[in-house]
Amino acid sequence: MKNTGKLQGKTLFITGASRGIGKAIALKAARDGANVVIAAKTAEPHPKLPGTIYTAAEEIEKAGGKALPCIVDVRDERQVQLAVEAAVAKFGGIDILINNASAISKTGTLQTDMKRFDLMHNINTRGTFMVSKACLPYLLKSDNPHILILSPPLNMKPRLFSNHTAYTIAKYGMSMCVLGMAEEFRDQGVAVNALWPRTTIHTAAVDMLYGPEGALYSRKPEMMADAAYAIISRDSRKYSGNFFIDDEVLLDVGIKDLSNYACHPENQQTFKLAIFMDDQGGFAKL
Amino acid sequence: MKNTGKLQGKTLFITGASRGIGKAIALKAARDGANVVIAAKTAEPHPKLPGTIYTAAEEIEKAGGKALPCIVDVRDERQVQLAVEAAVAKFGGIDILINNASAISKTGTLQTDMKRFDLMHNINTRGTFMVSKACLPYLLKSDNPHILILSPPLNMKPRLFSNHTAYTIAKYGMSMCVLGMAEEFRDQGVAVNALWPRTTIHTAAVDMLYGPEGALYSRKPEMMADAAYAIISRDSRKYSGNFFIDDEVLLDVGIKDLSNYACHPENQQTFKLAIFMDDQGGFAKL
Repeated sequence: MKNTGKLQGKTLFITGASRGIGKAIALKAARDGANVVIAAKTAEPHPKLPGTIYTAAEEIEKAGGKALPCIVDVRDERQVQLAVEAAVAKFGGIDILINNASAISKTGTLQTDMKRFDLMHNINTRGTFMVSKACLPYLLKSDNPHILILSPPLNMKPRLFSNHTAYTIAKYGMSMCVLGMAEEFRDQGVAVNALWPRTTIHTAAVDMLYGPEGALYSRKPEMMADAAYAIISRDSRKYSGNFFIDDEVLLDVGIKDLSNYACHPENQQTFKLAIFMDDQGGFAKL
Repeated sequence: MKNTGKLQGKTLFITGASRGIGKAIALKAARDGANVVIAAKTAEPHPKLPGTIYTAAEEIEKAGGKALPCIVDVRDERQVQLAVEAAVAKFGGIDILINNASAISKTGTLQTDMKRFDLMHNINTRGTFMVSKACLPYLLKSDNPHILILSPPLNMKPRLFSNHTAYTIAKYGMSMCVLGMAEEFRDQGVAVNALWPRTTIHTAAVDMLYGPEGALYSRKPEMMADAAYAIISRDSRKYSGNFFIDDEVLLDVGIKDLSNYACHPENQQTFKLAIFMDDQGGFAKL
């Protein structure tokens, strides 16, 4: 297969790319002939979750990309730094960073022990800040550098906090990295944008949070991958500091029929809204 | 001196109360005959900074209050827990928590090493969350419980992030505790509010950031103390989830002449605006 897509030859550094949305973005880029650094924790098969950095690497190579699996816990500064150095040694640089890794615990203040608070902060806010900081020296040398952060718009409605203040703080910290870094690196041409789904996306996290119902009214990770692809293919000097929602991005590139993204075709018009897109965990006809 | 003020007999837990704004709030409450838990790090005199938890305790007792000095690094869960238990053992409960402790480094993304990022997060966002969580079981038993967090309104203007994204995230994390906890504990009557100054307040932090000019165009910590007093004296069931600015609070209780709060009477109409009140570090005629 000859690859001539927009991301051909580009190097993507993707956190949490061994499964879910991270892997879907990796595969989408791989089909263009991109290089993908799989920066994720899982080296040995997880007892309950599918996929390791090595199985993801195989899939990426099969799809037409080049893969570099790296054992990276985004809480560990040294592992992050080593993966960035390995990426640059193998591929010559880094063009695109996808901050996808995330932890969630929808617990109230008194029910959130500090271990859980720290896990969410260290993976979400701190991990995003640290991986971005580590990649930035190389992004600054790319001709179309992008940081894409999978985090929600900064909606300050109290209800989006009150049932899970610690999680919202940890997630909004990622979104504040978008605001701050977009402005800080605007003149140097680094795009920093956020992407969030309208509906729940069927991943291991959704299974964990909602059980079997999770899949029923969700969309596939490929929807987020297609939206991410549309963003990171753009001119980084013209699109920075935005908080994108997946369906809006797709509509903007002419994809109007979203029915194929539904996990269950029979439910293709009823979806569970993603967290932060609705404070009641409700459903919507879309 | 017989004390009959509004805070008479109330127990305040104040972080960072050994100097600056924290101590000024402690002394204001002490004049009413309040009990004050001084939860701060400095037990031995600091080479450059005035005051320890013990000298603050002496001043509080002299002013008419009862003091409990506790060695508390708000990054240390065990120290926080021990101080809360000591407070309850000595005073029978906790009525008011002032989250005042804070760290600042106005550095860009690439100039902020993770040690500094962690210091700011751990003291500001995490410290506020953790101390609030530790005090809440007792606040929930008080008849007029208040948490007052010294943090700014959540203004999402990119310029308020771009030169110091890590600091803004750490500080806005405190403000998001206000949003989230105010909503979460509203039905239980716990007020959670934010207070921030309009102008720079002359403390050791301002000296450190701005040098001798820091004092010249600043106001005294007593201004924040008077504003804090006005807030925590209110009915907790009626005033929660607000982001107060010091001069507005004082105006609201009828204090219109603010000239005595100026550090330098000759500059009583020109002030340096506090961080987050202006993104240019500018001055204003007030």
